[in-house]
Amino acid sequence: MSGKKREIRPKPRLPKGMRDIDAAEIRAVEQMLGTIRQVYESYGFEPLDTPAFEYTDTLGKFLPDQDRPNEGVFSFQDEDEQWLSLRYDLTAPLARFVAQNYDGLPKPFRRYQTGPVWRNEKPGPGRFRQFTQFDADTVGTDNVAADAELCMLAADTYKALGVPRGSYTIRVNNRKILDGIIESAGIDLRDANNHAKRLTIMRAIDKLDRLGLGGVEQLLGEGRKDESGDYTKGAGLEAAQIAKLIDFITAARGDGGSGAMTRSDVLNAIETHLGESATGRDGLDELRIMDELLSAAGIGADQIAFEPAIVRGLEYYTGPVFEAELTYSDGGDAPSLGSVGSGGRYDGLVARFKGVEVPATGFSVGVSRLYASLQKLGKLNADRASAPAIILVMDKERTADYYKMASTLRVAGIRAEMYLGTSGMKAQMKYADKRGAPCVIIQGGDEKARGEVTIKDMILGEKLSQEIADNQEWREGQPAQFSVKEGELVEAVASVIARHGGSKPGADK
Amino acid sequence: MSGKKREIRPKPRLPKGMRDIDAAEIRAVEQMLGTIRQVYESYGFEPLDTPAFEYTDTLGKFLPDQDRPNEGVFSFQDEDEQWLSLRYDLTAPLARFVAQNYDGLPKPFRRYQTGPVWRNEKPGPGRFRQFTQFDADTVGTDNVAADAELCMLAADTYKALGVPRGSYTIRVNNRKILDGIIESAGIDLRDANNHAKRLTIMRAIDKLDRLGLGGVEQLLGEGRKDESGDYTKGAGLEAAQIAKLIDFITAARGDGGSGAMTRSDVLNAIETHLGESATGRDGLDELRIMDELLSAAGIGADQIAFEPAIVRGLEYYTGPVFEAELTYSDGGDAPSLGSVGSGGRYDGLVARFKGVEVPATGFSVGVSRLYASLQKLGKLNADRASAPAIILVMDKERTADYYKMASTLRVAGIRAEMYLGTSGMKAQMKYADKRGAPCVIIQGGDEKARGEVTIKDMILGEKLSQEIADNQEWREGQPAQFSVKEGELVEAVASVIARHGGSKPGADK
Repeated sequence: MSGKKREIRPKPRLPKGMRDIDAAEIRAVEQMLGTIRQVYESYGFEPLDTPAFEYTDTLGKFLPDQDRPNEGVFSFQDEDEQWLSLRYDLTAPLARFVAQNYDGLPKPFRRYQTGPVWRNEKPGPGRFRQFTQFDADTVGTDNVAADAELCMLAADTYKALGVPRGSYTIRVNNRKILDGIIESAGIDLRDANNHAKRLTIMRAIDKLDRLGLGGVEQLLGEGRKDESGDYTKGAGLEAAQIAKLIDFITAARGDGGSGAMTRSDVLNAIETHLGESATGRDGLDELRIMDELLSAAGIGADQIAFEPAIVRGLEYYTGPVFEAELTYSDGGDAPSLGSVGSGGRYDGLVARFKGVEVPATGFSVGVSRLYASLQKLGKLNADRASAPAIILVMDKERTADYYKMASTLRVAGIRAEMYLGTSGMKAQMKYADKRGAPCVIIQGGDEKARGEVTIKDMILGEKLSQEIADNQEWREGQPAQFSVKEGELVEAVASVIARHGGSKPGADK
Repeated sequence: MSGKKREIRPKPRLPKGMRDIDAAEIRAVEQMLGTIRQVYESYGFEPLDTPAFEYTDTLGKFLPDQDRPNEGVFSFQDEDEQWLSLRYDLTAPLARFVAQNYDGLPKPFRRYQTGPVWRNEKPGPGRFRQFTQFDADTVGTDNVAADAELCMLAADTYKALGVPRGSYTIRVNNRKILDGIIESAGIDLRDANNHAKRLTIMRAIDKLDRLGLGGVEQLLGEGRKDESGDYTKGAGLEAAQIAKLIDFITAARGDGGSGAMTRSDVLNAIETHLGESATGRDGLDELRIMDELLSAAGIGADQIAFEPAIVRGLEYYTGPVFEAELTYSDGGDAPSLGSVGSGGRYDGLVARFKGVEVPATGFSVGVSRLYASLQKLGKLNADRASAPAIILVMDKERTADYYKMASTLRVAGIRAEMYLGTSGMKAQMKYADKRGAPCVIIQGGDEKARGEVTIKDMILGEKLSQEIADNQEWREGQPAQFSVKEGELVEAVASVIARHGGSKPGADK
């Protein structure tokens, strides 16, 4: 750090799409993660951790015919010039782990994992390049009971987080049904030339929530120009084909949206549209089994609904797909808070390594989005931790006494700190205020002589200072400030904290 | 994912120096982190999170006169060709955060942070390229009470983790004392030409624990050849200078190591060696104040000791430095478990951005090393979570019933899963065994007809099968297996789990 570099002072700044996270959000998210962990554990999933970056090839992030990784991931080379990438989800590392340790694992293998993932994508409002996921996956079985279980786990997770029944819905579909309806519209999916068309159709249907039926219709046909003038080319289907697909989507949705139909109603509506497609019938059978299991466990369509327009973005899904949505619970047409989790069956991921298919299904909670939604639902306000009590330094020579007071309070389970700066009273009070301290503890010469300490209730003090207009009366009364004997310090501070509904550290765990 | 790439199957493997972490370690570490968090919170520190990577220049990781980052960090370029690096500690991001948000922060600013850090260094046994730190820092005060507090926080942390008094020591020194003793040996530190010599001397003293006095003596002189034949050039001091430094180190250590002397004894021994160095006397005064504060709080030299040979590797320390060591508690000369945390005062880090010094001090727990040490001390065995009870699928047609049983157990707070594979009885029992299930729940046609379920206690069963040699007696007795009415399922499973000391999920939180 010498020479010319020393002259240049770097500007303190965050990389694009990155953010710092403050104490309130960290505490709330910690609590959320604890709740989610408890639900996942109760279902028998075991935790696993994998590293933040992996070889790019094991993540499947080389583009065809290129030697550089996909631009959607953050990549760099190691000392042997092998490409490494930061993980962009928790599923690709799981596939690597399973392939690497296959023989020693119990089968099915059930794990949960939480941690940050990174995307080298354009950031935007609420879209960051680092965010946290919380995944549960069951690997090594094609039993559709595993899919049903994940939907139920999702519902239980939102319930455990305090979301009332009616405010969360897990919407379920099956990719095989979508393929079936595309086949019954006369598009042969065994023909590789129709591969791109199939994806365009899926993507069009996926936009139903955002664009409505009209928008989907345009995207199934020639294409669509949005408000900004951008043009998206469509699937180029014929009018009869478009009509068949739109008919399918609407028929199985009912008039009042998914919530108004039972799961059996939806399945029956789908069946009348499927025609002879074997793939489609397969998918329908799978959903029938899921319905049976969920109904046996007492779970209605208000919690887990079937919804034929659910597609999910990831190409690798092969069977049931699910999406969790939160809504405000006030009123019938509750506005959506958006998707806060999703998942589905992916039978091909481990095959990339092993050559043979290892069926798997998973569900992933988007922790950051869920946090934002729970905040809007008012589910995160209850448990704010108390700020520490602050011991003011009235006389620098007596620092050791103040230090000991802080220690005494902590031993009693009360968050406490001695003011560690070197400024005077005014700055110390300002500091206590900025920290949100419930009270400050004061012991100057007079108090010491009397063997007392003074406690100033900062929260009550602020309230009273707003109420009492007469400054003199305020100074004389000082009702938020009281003195106790030195031996009563702990009790007095605890009473002030309790007065404002605070608790001892860790008491809410 | 088409074309030639498709043909090549990647080998599932981990990058060099990386590892997967299993359920037992994750659970133990989660619990450790919770305990550390509680101690840090009790001292009034607030949590902060910063992203995994930062601009390389804000981390201070450009080498002098080079435009590529230091090889010790993992680096890559963003779309604007700016260099980014994965954080290698939690202190550099803190300095960036403070410089960026300085005006709005309470001063002093006190935060804790935990998370992974990455080092692009040669991996070895127990040395990984990703590991977890847990830091507490106080920024914006030169008050030595802040340093004393961090030493006390360190001691409280190990105590809270169950390490008995006598098995942890925080060893404290002051860089100013080291500078003072170097000055009093006749080396002028105001002369920039002596900068490198100063670092070599510090590095030599730092090796006392590993090389002994003889090794340090060689490194202060011409140099030292180790067992492998590698030669390290020494500081090239004269014999009289070397003698003075060695004399200082030994005198202030006493005969029986640091534990045998009180903190005042050590300070007095240091004082007689310091001579007229103003810097040295400054450092001594700081340690005197720390001693006073710690003694007032009842903390003896068995917990926090002064030790003049403590240096700490990082160049940026400017005042007190501390190192936490765990030892086996059995016997007088308890063998060391090594360093499990360290810290010190660094008054220059934020100045890189702001041009003016912002005094700061911090302590960092090495979580992975601490985990390994606590394991050796036997402090992590108590709280192993129970594995889930497993409901066997005896009759595929009745999957919904089994599914409901799992749900019923979970609602009662018992970890439970229905077997989700599609294999027969033998494979299901093997699965339950591999998962470590405390019991399996069986309901075949006979049981169903009687309205009963059978519970097989897997742990007792294994024990008995080892004891009972006579196979026939075993089959007839089946003492680990019993049947109850369907309505008594929850109670019966709970009793089996309790029999083996297990608990409900989350009950240990």
